[in-house]
Amino acid sequence: MRIGRVARGADATPRLVAVAPEGLVDLVTADIALSMRRGVTREAATRVAEAKFPGSLTTALDRGAGVLLEEAAAALASFDERALIPFDEAVFLPPANPRVLRCCSAFEEHARNGFSRLGRDVPATFYEFPPYYKGSPAGLIGHRAPVRWPGYTQSMDYELEFALVMGSGGTNLQPEDAASHIFGVTVMNDFSARDTQSREAGQGLGPAKAKDFATALGPWITTLDELDIHSLPMIARVNGVEWSRGSSSTMTWLPEELVAYLAYGEELLPGDVIASGTVGKGCGMELGKELAPGDIVELEIGGIGTLTNQLGRPETSGWRPVPRRQFAGGTS
Amino acid sequence: MRIGRVARGADATPRLVAVAPEGLVDLVTADIALSMRRGVTREAATRVAEAKFPGSLTTALDRGAGVLLEEAAAALASFDERALIPFDEAVFLPPANPRVLRCCSAFEEHARNGFSRLGRDVPATFYEFPPYYKGSPAGLIGHRAPVRWPGYTQSMDYELEFALVMGSGGTNLQPEDAASHIFGVTVMNDFSARDTQSREAGQGLGPAKAKDFATALGPWITTLDELDIHSLPMIARVNGVEWSRGSSSTMTWLPEELVAYLAYGEELLPGDVIASGTVGKGCGMELGKELAPGDIVELEIGGIGTLTNQLGRPETSGWRPVPRRQFAGGTS
Repeated sequence: MRIGRVARGADATPRLVAVAPEGLVDLVTADIALSMRRGVTREAATRVAEAKFPGSLTTALDRGAGVLLEEAAAALASFDERALIPFDEAVFLPPANPRVLRCCSAFEEHARNGFSRLGRDVPATFYEFPPYYKGSPAGLIGHRAPVRWPGYTQSMDYELEFALVMGSGGTNLQPEDAASHIFGVTVMNDFSARDTQSREAGQGLGPAKAKDFATALGPWITTLDELDIHSLPMIARVNGVEWSRGSSSTMTWLPEELVAYLAYGEELLPGDVIASGTVGKGCGMELGKELAPGDIVELEIGGIGTLTNQLGRPETSGWRPVPRRQFAGGTS
Repeated sequence: MRIGRVARGADATPRLVAVAPEGLVDLVTADIALSMRRGVTREAATRVAEAKFPGSLTTALDRGAGVLLEEAAAALASFDERALIPFDEAVFLPPANPRVLRCCSAFEEHARNGFSRLGRDVPATFYEFPPYYKGSPAGLIGHRAPVRWPGYTQSMDYELEFALVMGSGGTNLQPEDAASHIFGVTVMNDFSARDTQSREAGQGLGPAKAKDFATALGPWITTLDELDIHSLPMIARVNGVEWSRGSSSTMTWLPEELVAYLAYGEELLPGDVIASGTVGKGCGMELGKELAPGDIVELEIGGIGTLTNQLGRPETSGWRPVPRRQFAGGTS
């Protein structure tokens, strides 16, 4: 099954949707109709439908991924046209709204190309554990949403990635247990301000302003049973021209290993998002290219779909820090 | 005012509390009594009280910090003993449950001592913008909660910090606007696995497993009007012995500047937490000391209170990554 989120109606209410051949099925509207055909009043049907299919996927998954998929399948099996949203009319939200967004670096080729630009080899630790940083859930945007261009960057890039969405939580998991905890997979574009990322690198705290302004997810989540996550074809196009092509088969760290490592000594939660990291040659930095305002970036992953976003114009407001004078004293 | 969160009752329901001299006041219970004295039925009073004072501070702040404080003041003005929780009986939750947890490094002395251990000077960029990384909201624990000790570390440390809690969101703010967006301040202990942090440093993605297992906040949030955030006295004790003493007056980047910088080109949200970074000599690493299983760490900040947490025993389960062989090919 394919599950997403859209903003619906005049007040842009977040709604869970399932994907049908004809379009997106609003699960609340479909479930209300299903109950009313059984003689339930609209008021009671609405109360239950909104409880079963909240606008937050994380809240829905807190009841269990199996329960959600079973109830979504029932609604999908008998929806009428009032529940159907044509693909081209949908206002997409990020399909997941995680409590924690973890962004890994699991593709050696991307790491090698990135470090080589700094005149360095891939650190030996890359082969000892999967490196990652945490993104900002507040920066998540959906399919077709515009990408803000912060005033502090003149060097904008995309990153071609896929993202796992956790269906259930857990801690100290083993790779062989991981698949049963994964709800599905979506496409992710980890937009990056490269000039900012270079300035932040020396601090040892990882990317921050370089990443948090926007991270695109979508268009929807394909459940794990419909995919072979070990050979997902991945393609990036900029303004219709192919820039990147790769496959999840080239990962140094497997998706199940990422889940197990991230659950080591801490708690993963339902709805959490785990990004794969950029596939080899999956960003402009590796190709010696940059994005421009207004560029349209399409990321396509076989078995899921195509995530499309257009870059906005550079912003002019915001506080530019006033440099500080270094403290005169020595080390204390 | 001082606002916190506790787990109450057999099902450990999260409840917002306000601090009174005699103890913690459960705002839902107090508000129900207030409405019932006005003739409202218990059922109706409960429905409204739970809507006004949800267990999530972030959800409460989405209605506006002013509204929350006004309604809390009314409940606090006339509570009866059923709403009162003695301090020593309270099960504290982290007072904030942010959508995004940002951890800055605003104290030059801590940066200098940290980099000097690596034989390096503080990077010039430290004086150009305030560096930060994002923590994991899933790792937040409250006052008196035990601290898990992940199986991957043999080097545990504390970090003496304070944390701002945003009362309202915003983007592209200026420092002079920042104070009006800050709800209050709490004490934060950013527990750190130093051996893991060293291994992660070379990857350029910042601390991850080194930090995410546990971050303590509490015991409660003191609203900004009751504090001078530019001269907060900060003290750390381990097993009753003072290890660290400092002040927020030594910050290179002021709290208002941190808010403005973090809002630059991205959206801050109500309830978001912004940590100050470690005050100079505010952790064992700067003192050549480490924590041991069972140690009790108390962090005290004048005008707020004391955050106490005890370290657990090292865990033995979890997946230790199997090292990978480096790819033979060159840079592509």
